[in-house]
Amino acid sequence: MLPLLALLAQPALADEGMWLPEQLPQHAERLAELGLTLPVTQIADPMAYPLGAIVSLGFCSASFVSPDGLILTNHHCVGSYLGYNSSAEANRAREGYLATDRASELWAGPSARLQVVESIEDVTERVRAKAGKRVSDRDREAAVNRAVKELVAECEQQPDRRCRVASYHGGQSWRLIRALEFKDVRLVYAPHETVGSYGGEIDNWMWPRHSGDFAVLRAYVGPDGKVAAHAPENVPYRPAQHLRIDPTGAQEGEMVMVAGVPGGTARHAPSWELAARQQRLEADIARSERYMAILQAESARDPEGAARLASHIDAVGNGLKYNQGLRDNFASSAVVPRLQARDEALRAWIAADKKRNKLYGPVLDELQRRHQEALAEYEVEAVAGRLLRFIDLLGVATTALRFADEAKKPDLERDQGTQDRDRERMQDRFASMDKTLWLPADREFMALFLEEHAALPSDQRIAPLDAWITAQGGTKAALDRLFTNPTLATNEARQALLQADAASLRASTDPWVQLAVALESWRAPRRERDKARAGASLRLRPLYMEAMQQAFPGAIYPDANGTLRVSFGRVEGYSPADGLLALPRTTVAGMAAKAGPPPFDAPPKLLAAAASSKGSPWVDAELGDVPVNFLTSLDTTGGNSGSATLNGQGELVGLIFDGNYEAMSADYLFDPALTRSIHVDIRYLLWMLDEVEGAGWLLSELGVGS
Amino acid sequence: MLPLLALLAQPALADEGMWLPEQLPQHAERLAELGLTLPVTQIADPMAYPLGAIVSLGFCSASFVSPDGLILTNHHCVGSYLGYNSSAEANRAREGYLATDRASELWAGPSARLQVVESIEDVTERVRAKAGKRVSDRDREAAVNRAVKELVAECEQQPDRRCRVASYHGGQSWRLIRALEFKDVRLVYAPHETVGSYGGEIDNWMWPRHSGDFAVLRAYVGPDGKVAAHAPENVPYRPAQHLRIDPTGAQEGEMVMVAGVPGGTARHAPSWELAARQQRLEADIARSERYMAILQAESARDPEGAARLASHIDAVGNGLKYNQGLRDNFASSAVVPRLQARDEALRAWIAADKKRNKLYGPVLDELQRRHQEALAEYEVEAVAGRLLRFIDLLGVATTALRFADEAKKPDLERDQGTQDRDRERMQDRFASMDKTLWLPADREFMALFLEEHAALPSDQRIAPLDAWITAQGGTKAALDRLFTNPTLATNEARQALLQADAASLRASTDPWVQLAVALESWRAPRRERDKARAGASLRLRPLYMEAMQQAFPGAIYPDANGTLRVSFGRVEGYSPADGLLALPRTTVAGMAAKAGPPPFDAPPKLLAAAASSKGSPWVDAELGDVPVNFLTSLDTTGGNSGSATLNGQGELVGLIFDGNYEAMSADYLFDPALTRSIHVDIRYLLWMLDEVEGAGWLLSELGVGS
Repeated sequence: MLPLLALLAQPALADEGMWLPEQLPQHAERLAELGLTLPVTQIADPMAYPLGAIVSLGFCSASFVSPDGLILTNHHCVGSYLGYNSSAEANRAREGYLATDRASELWAGPSARLQVVESIEDVTERVRAKAGKRVSDRDREAAVNRAVKELVAECEQQPDRRCRVASYHGGQSWRLIRALEFKDVRLVYAPHETVGSYGGEIDNWMWPRHSGDFAVLRAYVGPDGKVAAHAPENVPYRPAQHLRIDPTGAQEGEMVMVAGVPGGTARHAPSWELAARQQRLEADIARSERYMAILQAESARDPEGAARLASHIDAVGNGLKYNQGLRDNFASSAVVPRLQARDEALRAWIAADKKRNKLYGPVLDELQRRHQEALAEYEVEAVAGRLLRFIDLLGVATTALRFADEAKKPDLERDQGTQDRDRERMQDRFASMDKTLWLPADREFMALFLEEHAALPSDQRIAPLDAWITAQGGTKAALDRLFTNPTLATNEARQALLQADAASLRASTDPWVQLAVALESWRAPRRERDKARAGASLRLRPLYMEAMQQAFPGAIYPDANGTLRVSFGRVEGYSPADGLLALPRTTVAGMAAKAGPPPFDAPPKLLAAAASSKGSPWVDAELGDVPVNFLTSLDTTGGNSGSATLNGQGELVGLIFDGNYEAMSADYLFDPALTRSIHVDIRYLLWMLDEVEGAGWLLSELGVGS
Repeated sequence: MLPLLALLAQPALADEGMWLPEQLPQHAERLAELGLTLPVTQIADPMAYPLGAIVSLGFCSASFVSPDGLILTNHHCVGSYLGYNSSAEANRAREGYLATDRASELWAGPSARLQVVESIEDVTERVRAKAGKRVSDRDREAAVNRAVKELVAECEQQPDRRCRVASYHGGQSWRLIRALEFKDVRLVYAPHETVGSYGGEIDNWMWPRHSGDFAVLRAYVGPDGKVAAHAPENVPYRPAQHLRIDPTGAQEGEMVMVAGVPGGTARHAPSWELAARQQRLEADIARSERYMAILQAESARDPEGAARLASHIDAVGNGLKYNQGLRDNFASSAVVPRLQARDEALRAWIAADKKRNKLYGPVLDELQRRHQEALAEYEVEAVAGRLLRFIDLLGVATTALRFADEAKKPDLERDQGTQDRDRERMQDRFASMDKTLWLPADREFMALFLEEHAALPSDQRIAPLDAWITAQGGTKAALDRLFTNPTLATNEARQALLQADAASLRASTDPWVQLAVALESWRAPRRERDKARAGASLRLRPLYMEAMQQAFPGAIYPDANGTLRVSFGRVEGYSPADGLLALPRTTVAGMAAKAGPPPFDAPPKLLAAAASSKGSPWVDAELGDVPVNFLTSLDTTGGNSGSATLNGQGELVGLIFDGNYEAMSADYLFDPALTRSIHVDIRYLLWMLDEVEGAGWLLSELGVGS
C-alpha cells in the first residue's frame, strides 16, 4: 500500500506488490528503469511468453522449461511425490531421485495435479448481480455462491478443465480462471534431502542460506496429446510456452521478476485483526512447542512412526518458527502500531467529508464490531478446528458425513468443497493417508485437544462432545474405543465411508462416525451463522477497499489469493541488524563450510564436487564461485514457492523458495528495508546436474549443456 | 608470521603484528600508505607524543587525556575500583559514578596502581651473561633469574619506581622497563553497568556490538608533585604527554593504531602445543559449565553471595565463551593443521642444510619431547592449580607459607613473587578478599576439585593431600573443618598470617595452613623440576626463534608479554560467514533497538537521549547517527583493553575493548580475513558526557566542549 511507504519514511529500496498481470502496464516506467527489455504488454499477457509457461501444482508454483514439458519447482514442493515413490528399499524422500532417461521418470502418484491456465475472465457482474444492498446477508452469500458454482460448472463442462472463480479485494471483483489439469506428472530429478533443505529447521527462514531447493518434473499426456490418467503409453506434453534459462544467472542489483501463484496475504486487513493475531501469538507458540514434543517423542519411539510423521514435523516446525519470527518482527517493527496509524488516517479521511462519512463510516465500525463478535467463540472453534485438522480419522468421518448430507441436494446447491467435482480429490486424500496415518500420535493429540476443550468454561464447551464422551464412560474409555483397531485405518473402509448415505452414517456404530455426527450437530447451526457473516463481509469488504483506494490513491494490488501474480524488484541484500549486512548471494564454498552433523550432513559427492567448484563453468565471475542462493527485494509469500525468478529479458535465473526471518510479518506489512525473498540460483541446479549428478541428458534438454 | 599470509593465499586485508615501538620504522612505507602523518620516528619513541601518554593499570592499558592527569580506560577495567566504592546505599558497580567536580572524585582504593613508563633498556647481555651452553639447565635458570632480580633491585632503588625485566622471543632478548608507579588513582566517571557492558555475556566477544566500555580516572600526586599515598591534600598529576582527542572520530577505511600493553600471545608456539590445547577444550568447556552452575546456584541463594560472586561469574562466563569460540574457530579455520604446515616448512628448511640440521634439528625434537614429558603430570597439576586459584583461603595460606619459606634467604635469592617488593601487593590482595570471599561457593568448588583429584589414578594423586584428608576423617569431615568459621575469613588474620615465620606456620593448628603445608611438601620438588625445565626453555626457545626468523625472513614481532606495543591497520569490517558482512560501525539507534530485558536493560535516561541522537553534534555525517562501536583490522589481545585507538595524526578516536568471536584463536594464528578488534568510538563517550550525563566540565577538560 503506497501510503505505508510514506509512513515508513524510507527510500523505496524494494518494490511492494504482487500484481495482477493486467496491472503491469501501470508500472511500465518503473519496470523500464529497473531494466525490463521485454514489452510490458507482453509480460502482462498471461498466455504469452513468459507468463504462459507458469503453472500451478495446487500448493506451489512451477514453470515449463523445455519443449517436452520439463517443469521446475522447489524440492519442498515435491515431498509427497517422493514419499509416494519411497519404500524400505529406496528411500527417495531422503536420497532424492535422478531419472537416467525418460523411461525411468517416476509417476508422482494419484494426488499430483498440474494446472495450466488457459484463460482469465472478469465475471464480477455476473457474480455480484444478486448481491445488492437490499438482500439479507444470508441471501447475499447464497446468491454469490450460486453464481460462482454455476460459472465453475459451465466452465468445467469442457473436458479436463479445472475452473475457479476467485474474489479480489474481499469481493470487489471476481475472475473466472480456467485451467487445463494434468494428472500424469512424473518425477525427473530431486536432490538428496540434505541438499534440498540443507540446514533443516535451523536454516529455515534464515539468511545466509545454502539450499538446493529445486526439483524437476515432467507433464505427460495421452498419445493423442490430450490429458489422460497415468498410463505407460503416455507421452511428454508439449507446452505452448516454456521458459528459456539464462545460465549466466542474476547479478547483484539486476532486475528480477517472480511469476507464480502466491497463496494469501492480508496487507489491506484492518489493524484490529492483526492486533488479535499478535495477542494470540505466545499461546500459539507454546501450543506448537507442545505439538513438537509429542511428534518428536512419537518419532523417537518407532522408525515407522518417524517416517509417517516426518512431513507433520516439518509443517509444525515451520509454523512454529514462523510464529516466533512473527512475534519478534511484530515487536521490532511495530507492525500493529503502524497499521493502526494507517487505519487512523483512513478514519480521518472518511471523517473529513459528509458523504464519505455516511458511506464508509459505518463500514469500519461494523467490520470492527463483527470481528469482536467472532472473537467471542474463538477458543472453542479453534479447538474444534484442531480436532478436525490433526485427528485424521475424525477428519475422514466428518468429511464423509458432510458429503452425504450435502448429497441430498442438487449438485449446484451443495456447499463448495462437497460437490461431485470434489469427490475425486477427497478419494485421493483418503488414499494418501495410508502413507501418513500414525494412530499413536493422533491419540496423544486427541487427548491434548480434549483436555483443552474440557478446560473451557462449561457454557463455551461443545455440549454434544461432552455428552458423547460421558456416554463412552469418560475420556480414557472414549480414546480406547476410538483408537483400538479402528476400521477406518484401512483405505477400503475410508473409501466405502465416502460412498455411504447420510442415513446409514447416522445409524453407524463406528465410534469415529458417531463422534463426527455429535460434532456436526454442534457445527451445523454455526455453519448457517458463518454464511450470514460471509454475506456481511461481501457487503462490507468491497466498501472498505473502496475507501482505502480513494483515501490512498495510486496503484493498489489485491491481496494474494492463489491466482497468477507478478512481483518485480532487484537482487538486493539488506541489513538484518545495526552493524550487519546480508550480502545478496551465497556460494558453494559457503555451503561446504557449513557441512557437519545433521541438518548440515551434505552428501559426500556434493562436498567432493564443492572442493573444486571454483574451477567449474558455472562459476559467477564476480563471486569467483558457483552461486547457491540469492536475495531479492521481491514481494512474495507462501504459494510462490517454486515460482520462476526471471530477469529483465524474461529468462529463468532461479526459483524462489523462502522469505527472511526479519520480515516474517510481510504478509501483513511490506517493509522495503527488511522484506526479502530467498531464491536458489539456477546455476546451482545446473552445476548439480552437471558436476554432481552427471545428468548431461537433462542439461541438453534444458538447452544449457556445459 | 609472514609465511602464514602466504599459506592463507589471501590479500593482506589486515596488518598482523604487535610491534615494539623501536620496530615501527621498519614499517614506515606501509604506515605512510595507510595514512600516518606523524614522523615514524616520533611514534617509535616511547617517551614522545603519543606513546608517552600511554600508561598501564597492571591488567589493562590506559592513556592520559588532559594536562591535569585525566585517564581513559575501559569500564570493564575499573570493576574493582567501582566495587571498592560500592555499598548497600550506593551500588556504583551497578549504577556507575559521575564526579561533579574534582573534589568529588573517588579514590579507587589501595589496590589501584598506575604505571607510567620512564625508560626501556635492552639488558640482554647482562641477563644472558651466565646463561651459556655449558651450564646445566637448572643453573641457567638460576643465573638468569638472579640477573633479572639484581636489575630490578637496582632500578627500584629510585623511589616510587616499579621495574621489570621482560623476556622477548622466549629469552632471546631482555628489556628493563622502568615505570613511575602512582598509588592515588581516582574514579571520575563510569557509566551504568548496562552501558559499560551492554548485552552482557550474550554480546561479549560478538559483533554487532553496542557497549559504552569506557571509564574516566585521574592520577593524583602529593602537593610536591611526587608520588604519594592517597591523601586528601593530593593534587592532580600533570603528565608529560597527554593525548589529543579527535572529536570527528574515525571513518571506515581510515588508518588507526592501538598503543597499549597486550598481555600474552603464542603466535610463534610450535603446533603440538596448540594441538594439546585443542584436545583439552571440550573438557575445559564442560568444567566451566559446571563452575557456572555452581556460581549461579550460589548467587541465586543469597543476594550477598550474588554481589560477591559477580566478578567471578563474569570471569568464568568470559572464559567459557572464549573456549567455545576457540573450539569453533580451531575447527572452522583449521588452525592446528595450518600451524603444522608451518612447522613442517620449518623442519624442511632445517633439513635442507647440514649446519642448520646440526644447530636446530635437535632443538625442535627436544622441545617436542619436553612438551610430551610435561603433559604426563598435566591432570594432577591442573587440579592443584585450580585448588589454589579458586579456593581463596587455601591461596592465602599457601602464599603466606611461600613468603615465610623464602624469607629465610637473602632477598635477591628468593623466588620472584615472594620478595620484599611483592609483600605490599599481597597485603592489598588479602585485604580485597573482604569484598569477594564467599565461603559457600568455595566449599562447593573445593568438593568438586577433591572429587576430581580422587578420580585420578592412585599413582598420579597428591599423596600428602590424600593423607591429610584421611587424617581429618574423610572429605566431608575435612570440608567441615576447613569451612566452619575459618579464622582466615577476617583480613586481620590473613595479614597476621603473611607476617608469620615458617616455623610457626608449620606448627599451626589452622586447617588451611595445615593443608597448605601438606600440598607444599608435594609441590616443593616439582618447583625445582620446573626451574630446570625453565632453564631448558631458556636454552631452546631462543634457538627455535632464531630458526624461525631465518626460515621465514622478514619483520617478526615478539609475542605479547605485557610490554608496550603498537598495532596498526584500518577501520574495517569482515565477513563472519558466506553471505554476511559485518559493517565496521554501529550506532546509538542500533543500541536503542536492542533495548529490552537484561542484559539489554539500558538506563531510561540513555534511551531518552537516544531518541534524539540523530540531531546531536556528535553525529557521524556518513552514518547519520552517533557512532557507538567500530571494528578494525588491528592485531590486539587481552591486556590491550583500554588501549588508546589513535588516528594517523596520533589523536585519540576510541578505546579498544574486545576481539571478535569468529577469530577467537587469534592469540595463536592471526587470520587477516577474520581477525578484528572491537573499539568504542570516542564520540559515544563524548555524547554520553554531553547529552546523557550533562558533564560539561569534563568535556571542557577534554578540550572538546560541544
